[in-house]
Amino acid sequence: MRLVSTLRLTHGLVFAWALALGAQALAQTDPLPSWNDGSAKKAIVEFVHATTTMSSPKFVPPEQRIATFDQDGTLWVEHPIYSQLMYCLDRVPAVVKAKPELANVEPFKTVMSGNREAMAKFTPQDLEKIAVATLTGISVEEFRAQAQNWLAAARDPRWKRPYTELTYKPMQEVLGYLRANGYKTFIVTGGGQDFVRVYAEQVYDIPPEQVVGSAGATSFGYDKDGKPVLTKVPKFLLDDDHAGKPEGIHLMIGQRPHAAFGNSIGDQQMLEYTEAGDGARLAMLVLHDDAKREYAYGPAQGLPDSKIGTFTQALYDEAKKQGWIVISMKNDWKHIFAWEQ
Amino acid sequence: MRLVSTLRLTHGLVFAWALALGAQALAQTDPLPSWNDGSAKKAIVEFVHATTTMSSPKFVPPEQRIATFDQDGTLWVEHPIYSQLMYCLDRVPAVVKAKPELANVEPFKTVMSGNREAMAKFTPQDLEKIAVATLTGISVEEFRAQAQNWLAAARDPRWKRPYTELTYKPMQEVLGYLRANGYKTFIVTGGGQDFVRVYAEQVYDIPPEQVVGSAGATSFGYDKDGKPVLTKVPKFLLDDDHAGKPEGIHLMIGQRPHAAFGNSIGDQQMLEYTEAGDGARLAMLVLHDDAKREYAYGPAQGLPDSKIGTFTQALYDEAKKQGWIVISMKNDWKHIFAWEQ
Repeated sequence: MRLVSTLRLTHGLVFAWALALGAQALAQTDPLPSWNDGSAKKAIVEFVHATTTMSSPKFVPPEQRIATFDQDGTLWVEHPIYSQLMYCLDRVPAVVKAKPELANVEPFKTVMSGNREAMAKFTPQDLEKIAVATLTGISVEEFRAQAQNWLAAARDPRWKRPYTELTYKPMQEVLGYLRANGYKTFIVTGGGQDFVRVYAEQVYDIPPEQVVGSAGATSFGYDKDGKPVLTKVPKFLLDDDHAGKPEGIHLMIGQRPHAAFGNSIGDQQMLEYTEAGDGARLAMLVLHDDAKREYAYGPAQGLPDSKIGTFTQALYDEAKKQGWIVISMKNDWKHIFAWEQ
Repeated sequence: MRLVSTLRLTHGLVFAWALALGAQALAQTDPLPSWNDGSAKKAIVEFVHATTTMSSPKFVPPEQRIATFDQDGTLWVEHPIYSQLMYCLDRVPAVVKAKPELANVEPFKTVMSGNREAMAKFTPQDLEKIAVATLTGISVEEFRAQAQNWLAAARDPRWKRPYTELTYKPMQEVLGYLRANGYKTFIVTGGGQDFVRVYAEQVYDIPPEQVVGSAGATSFGYDKDGKPVLTKVPKFLLDDDHAGKPEGIHLMIGQRPHAAFGNSIGDQQMLEYTEAGDGARLAMLVLHDDAKREYAYGPAQGLPDSKIGTFTQALYDEAKKQGWIVISMKNDWKHIFAWEQ
């Protein structure tokens, strides 16, 4: 350890010198290069400046610098289908192979048929059956391995890329910019906590304990060899969407965020809760209005409310009323994806 | 921010120099000065060395360095009564003042009488009624303020000190030592998560999101002025004790710890789960065998199993069988409290 420490110190020293020499240059570097100048970019930069400048009346102590981000539709693509739902559908053949009796039982029969049109008509009850069959009855390690394998192999239908490459570069810049200024960044997703945790560290540099999401229970027990094992069981524990988001934030983070980012009605209460705190607060919504580079859905396009990622006209009106900043993907973002440039 | 950044850099630079110059001295400093030499201290130092030395076969990458600590009886005094129970009993007069109809209803009537002997006979149902009356029906901010006020004023009956001063100095050193070596330290308590979060940052340097505990639900809503509010409601959400500890760890941390510290049967499953992982693992139990400097209860003293902080003979035998290290407060700790010296 002594050697490692010394190496670290030397490295730290050189690094500090380099930083000191480059300080002025760094200070002038744009922290959000994928953002066009405009009210959205300005709001982020001003918020960070106001909350991290010691002399500012809006200064926020480092231990209170909490920022929360919805994931699907805010940090990465959610259209035309949530990646986790895709995962569950893709898992069905393996589940049916292990339990052949399911092959003739709905909704598994329809999934096995590959009939996408029929699948689009699945009821919430159908989807719950699929979720229970594909996400529970296995150990937390088995789930993790299965999800990792899928993520490595699966490609999205439009860009033919791994889902993990469909994250928005401008939002990655916001994550990094906030962290560089002492903010802890959390994902607060209506999606499955266990699923998002599989890739959050690799994709967003966000460790598992900073991912808050919908969660089923686990059950502690022992396998046939007496080895302790945590099994995912079909008991719904946390519904981390709508009112469940501020509730989940209190449970898992224990502090009110100073900044929150979302893109749908499922994020409204998180933004309300964030804004209701004292001092400087930042509440932003990503609007999907770029049919060419990504997708367009929601009120800005005069489009009907989408089944997923619902950005209703009511939410748009509320944002305007509350002073929440709506991010236009089309106008505010120079690039959408890292691989685009 | 530019000024702050420059100041930080300058400070960082000086600090790096100071560290470099003092590196050898630092490396020779005892990280656990309140511990006597012995198998317990040796196990901790060897574990840290093995898991943080790059060339070690037991090296653990920084992002996997998770250590979990029970709180009552492991990090601070739990006898003769848990501090949170004391808190709830002390809150009863204020609750009765607000709801006078409770004055003649049990168990509140007994609490108001001050009859400690009768209170010692409370059933779990009585305690639940007291918990619901004192911990719910208020906003999370109101609870926090009430608990902060109590902690500032309350004194423990034996040492006449604030409860927050009753933490074990040797365990504080372990927390600091692990953190200095890249470990994230978490409290995993059977006690109330919201209660422990009120003081964990001040007492242990552990932020709210790194406190996992038993938790009631909150409900998101709006007050009469339309302001968003999170209210603590009488719905039990997480029972973070026994099997609930590894389950809580998965839910809140999402990774298996490499080190776990406890002191009772409520910690057994957490230690089992920790030990069942690959590579280097550390599982330790604090034994209260020092009647003079703290308290003695449990098997080592031939004493009957205590109602709280139960360290049974069965747990003691299990620890020996599993190779878990039992920390003797009497023999392993030079000092118990920081103010003792």
